[in-house]
Amino acid sequence: MAEAFSFEILEEIAVLSENPKGWRKELNLVSWNGRPPKFDLRDWSPEHEKMGKGITLSNEEFAALKQAILSM
Amino acid sequence: MAEAFSFEILEEIAVLSENPKGWRKELNLVSWNGRPPKFDLRDWSPEHEKMGKGITLSNEEFAALKQAILSM
Repeated sequence: MAEAFSFEILEEIAVLSENPKGWRKELNLVSWNGRPPKFDLRDWSPEHEKMGKGITLSNEEFAALKQAILSM
Repeated sequence: MAEAFSFEILEEIAVLSENPKGWRKELNLVSWNGRPPKFDLRDWSPEHEKMGKGITLSNEEFAALKQAILSM
């Protein structure tokens, strides 16, 4: 069952790619349902009208990701 | 409709977090359906028996993510 939710993109950190239809894979800071913001890797349609698949990361998860990338 | 697919985790790069049920958020190199591997951020059950939500990144997208993180 679909549930109502709200989101607000607080910061657009980076656009990782864009496909021919204009959908972009983005790294953003997003607040879901008014909660504290999380890092969010996700596909978005132009103007952020529709969202696609993605994953959210807490501050701790993002720090672990950063550490992993730095050590590669 | 569900489609059959195969996957192989070629390299476990990092575990970003683990929840009380043992599911982990991981950064891996994964080959889907025998194709060249992609970077994959995803939730996994213990022993990788079940996969949860996640996102795959091409080499170019991963390089863009790395650049964004380095410049933060």
